[in-house]
Amino acid sequence: MELAGIYHRPESEMAFLYAPKKMRIRLRTSKDDIKNVELIHGDPYSLRSLAGIEPPFYQSTSRMKKILSDELYDYWQIEVTEPKKRLAYAFKVTDTAGSELVYTDRGFIKIDDKEQLDDMNTYFRMPFFQEIDMAKEPEWVRKTIWYQIFPERFANGDVTNDPQDTKKWDPNINPGRQDFYGGDLQGVLDHLDYLKELGINGIYFNPIFKAPSNHKYDTEDYYQIDPHFGDKKLFKELVKQAHKRGIRVMLDAVFNHIGDKSPQWQDVLKNGENSKYKDWFHINKFPATYTPTNNFEFALDATYDTFDYTPHMPKLNTANPEVQEYLLDIGEYWVKEFDIDAWRLDVANEIDHHFWREFHNKMIKLKPDFYILGEIWHTSQAWLNGDEFNGVMNYAYTTAILQHFIEKKLTTTELVEQLSTQLMKYRDQTNQMMFNVLDSHDTARIKTLAHNNMDLVRQIFTFTFLQSGTPSIYYGTEYGMTGENDPDSRKPMNWWPNEEEKDIFKFFQLLIEFRKKNWQLISEGEIKFTVLDNGLLKIERVLRNKKITGLFNTTSKEIKLMKKEKPIISQNYQGNALKRDGFVISKRKS
Amino acid sequence: MELAGIYHRPESEMAFLYAPKKMRIRLRTSKDDIKNVELIHGDPYSLRSLAGIEPPFYQSTSRMKKILSDELYDYWQIEVTEPKKRLAYAFKVTDTAGSELVYTDRGFIKIDDKEQLDDMNTYFRMPFFQEIDMAKEPEWVRKTIWYQIFPERFANGDVTNDPQDTKKWDPNINPGRQDFYGGDLQGVLDHLDYLKELGINGIYFNPIFKAPSNHKYDTEDYYQIDPHFGDKKLFKELVKQAHKRGIRVMLDAVFNHIGDKSPQWQDVLKNGENSKYKDWFHINKFPATYTPTNNFEFALDATYDTFDYTPHMPKLNTANPEVQEYLLDIGEYWVKEFDIDAWRLDVANEIDHHFWREFHNKMIKLKPDFYILGEIWHTSQAWLNGDEFNGVMNYAYTTAILQHFIEKKLTTTELVEQLSTQLMKYRDQTNQMMFNVLDSHDTARIKTLAHNNMDLVRQIFTFTFLQSGTPSIYYGTEYGMTGENDPDSRKPMNWWPNEEEKDIFKFFQLLIEFRKKNWQLISEGEIKFTVLDNGLLKIERVLRNKKITGLFNTTSKEIKLMKKEKPIISQNYQGNALKRDGFVISKRKS
Repeated sequence: MELAGIYHRPESEMAFLYAPKKMRIRLRTSKDDIKNVELIHGDPYSLRSLAGIEPPFYQSTSRMKKILSDELYDYWQIEVTEPKKRLAYAFKVTDTAGSELVYTDRGFIKIDDKEQLDDMNTYFRMPFFQEIDMAKEPEWVRKTIWYQIFPERFANGDVTNDPQDTKKWDPNINPGRQDFYGGDLQGVLDHLDYLKELGINGIYFNPIFKAPSNHKYDTEDYYQIDPHFGDKKLFKELVKQAHKRGIRVMLDAVFNHIGDKSPQWQDVLKNGENSKYKDWFHINKFPATYTPTNNFEFALDATYDTFDYTPHMPKLNTANPEVQEYLLDIGEYWVKEFDIDAWRLDVANEIDHHFWREFHNKMIKLKPDFYILGEIWHTSQAWLNGDEFNGVMNYAYTTAILQHFIEKKLTTTELVEQLSTQLMKYRDQTNQMMFNVLDSHDTARIKTLAHNNMDLVRQIFTFTFLQSGTPSIYYGTEYGMTGENDPDSRKPMNWWPNEEEKDIFKFFQLLIEFRKKNWQLISEGEIKFTVLDNGLLKIERVLRNKKITGLFNTTSKEIKLMKKEKPIISQNYQGNALKRDGFVISKRKS
Repeated sequence: MELAGIYHRPESEMAFLYAPKKMRIRLRTSKDDIKNVELIHGDPYSLRSLAGIEPPFYQSTSRMKKILSDELYDYWQIEVTEPKKRLAYAFKVTDTAGSELVYTDRGFIKIDDKEQLDDMNTYFRMPFFQEIDMAKEPEWVRKTIWYQIFPERFANGDVTNDPQDTKKWDPNINPGRQDFYGGDLQGVLDHLDYLKELGINGIYFNPIFKAPSNHKYDTEDYYQIDPHFGDKKLFKELVKQAHKRGIRVMLDAVFNHIGDKSPQWQDVLKNGENSKYKDWFHINKFPATYTPTNNFEFALDATYDTFDYTPHMPKLNTANPEVQEYLLDIGEYWVKEFDIDAWRLDVANEIDHHFWREFHNKMIKLKPDFYILGEIWHTSQAWLNGDEFNGVMNYAYTTAILQHFIEKKLTTTELVEQLSTQLMKYRDQTNQMMFNVLDSHDTARIKTLAHNNMDLVRQIFTFTFLQSGTPSIYYGTEYGMTGENDPDSRKPMNWWPNEEEKDIFKFFQLLIEFRKKNWQLISEGEIKFTVLDNGLLKIERVLRNKKITGLFNTTSKEIKLMKKEKPIISQNYQGNALKRDGFVISKRKS
């Protein structure tokens, strides 16, 4: 038995309340090493001679299921309840050679070590089923298909608020880094029915607060809508009209840093050490200066902490109670006054956990089903325990998808392994909250990455729409828009689609409709990946007696299916053959 | 290379700020599998082409040190700083066969995989050195030797407040479960100079609030000193006098449950579902009842959640804001009004994390160097991240010690492995806060466990006083008191020591003096265990250029030492020979 590969950690993604009385327990073992895992579990106090409750719980076990595997490990899971809401547990593992051991909080013991089995302190513990500590996730997110809008480029609904030197709205242009095209909130309002027709039910807005740049990540005033985008009255109406159409609204909060045009930073520049804002930042040496380079966004010698190496984005000191209060108030203001449903938090990993816990508490008090999405690119366990964020921008997912479907750097088996690794990093309910982006304002557009192969794009989206995470469509993808890395991925929206582009729209309508109809199965169901002998990638989603199966041909050859499928959605499927970039989604009773 | 045994987890005991700019990083690898580990680390943003900072940080590495090993694993550690306070890192591991790989947030990569090494998202991340999130531990605890007082049995200083049927104070009696002996706070006050003479500088009091039992864990009123113990005026004086003598005071808070004689529970019994306190508890069915058994502390069918199976200790619902406020106010009251220095929290694991975070915040606001000690018997990582408790009652340590030194169930090597496992479960600063009890009111007395072998007791204490954790002496141990499991371990204090017992006292004086003099080295220094070929257990503590070495003979034979030691403290050491139960502590420049 490969003991060194066996791992469990209580009160983490490996032992968590999934629902008020349902505790889910996971075990990780070395791949292909363990044949069988059984959970020994019961009320710890029932073991003490004082209680004298017979027979002791360790005399019976519950079989765990091997749910996923990756390159190095197998993962086992079970859901248990306990009448007394107190859980002591250990894992009886049997390896492929038949050896048996019990893995406990004190390490490995023999399966007949009665003295240790009788001692409540031998066991792993979830001491009490604390509903208040459970990671509770908003149900509406499970049903949501997001649509990301970069406001300066979606639609120009009001030419009277256009910036100076606004360029002509041309979806085929390659935008410059500092260009303006006049997109605004009126443009979004005008197209809400369009979005409803598409079927999406959540809008993720890139920043809309007053800021000098076109991307608005250099906030000047968190309490103002950028005047080129509109005003508060208009935004209020926009949220109201969106809600009327069943569309939720998520705003982008940039709390890690502030723009250098903000009054706070301007005061620091003016008054130096005498500024009342001097402790709002991390200033390592006064005066706050830097040597400009020929790159506007780069300076090596800033005397203050910045985002990245960008001198125009001084980092805020969120350990300062004044800054905390300031930012928390902003967080509350847009929820209370404008009824937004979610915050997307920029550079969320570089802000402290104390602040985010406070932020989470405030938001949940205002709206119990509020959704908080962090921008974190790396493994995010520390933020996803239910008291900070609901989910993160799932770039780890994106990377694996692109590397398999497009770049072919990962084999089908490697893709499955990577997705499994990722799913096992988080609680099941957290996986349902992950924001599965394929492209965004920060990356090249998916169609461009896919070398304009729209079949491939459709295949990737269909695969993504079958994952537990909440999917997102970057504006214009529904018309097959293209673009290299930013700023090229931020072209003005194409409002004049040709027939081919209209067909893409129809496909997305269909896919969205499918995801919404099957939201519970797809969000909450068990997931099973199989790489078939013929190279097909099979994904199965199961919830109670319902099942959806997807077959994806990511090879370069045509593959004959064993039996004829009755697809709900399919592509490149004819007769019994699934061509390159093809897929078949079918539904059946489990 | 045994990849499945290699493990790291950011933002945990494996990656933590030890001091404001000092990040400590650990790696776990399969035992004896890895020859060398180097940390690749730097500012993530320096990698992006935008910054163009050359050479990329991954071209140089920092060597990690193998600090401890247990049965299955080796543990490697390093301390690093980063000028930008942002850390990307990965581990370059070389196995005994010479194979090299880099272990990253995305799994294992080849050491020359430039594309991945150039990508900031390949790395593990500690995104920003957040001092506010750092586990900050009170320095005074590092210098503290605790003395645990069970107030009913330490000293009767005021016979006028004795309970009815108070028994005669006899240190040789075997107390019954419900007996009273008249111990009180005046008795403690009268003996503060005695404690100062002994040298201890912290008192841990078992509960002193009003409660019917002799142990007072069934609190009736958290705002009253038990009248048999004294009153608030006396307690205030006691704290003042203790502080005057440099002795800190820790009280025992029982917040998991309340006594059934409390007004809140009495109201529930009287008014049932109409009680205003009905949501203060977890009542599964009204009325709140149970069927008594012939064991006062046991009922199987209580219709409400209790501590253990004790119907007289109904569990409090700490998710109820009213209960939270009630208990938090109690927590504050005794700090604000009486200036206590620490809370020991009974059954702390069965109360929710939300509550403890709030509790921690409140205490720290009142006294920044407040000490919070949780009673948790199992692995306690979830409570020891710096925002709930400083340490826990270290019963895992106790168990290993007893199993080796006394029961001989663990070999010397196994002892070292178990201690190493435990140390690697927590941050270094947390290990310094662990409350290293050898016995208590909840266990048999150490001398009884050691079959009255006082040499062995002295050996165990000396070994314990060399550990990072804060040591504790249960009242009377300094006079060699004995007792089986409770209530026998709660005999009245022996105030009439014979010469032999007075010698034990002198030994403890010496040991305490030694620990206080060398507190920084022993608390903060590196630790190294070695099992010598001759069977001796060697422990070395090193801090900068200072070093303390301890040699312990836990075998049944006399062992000749290689060279003559100049001991600071020793036992059974003559010529060059260390006899059974012997030890030698020496100090030298490192």
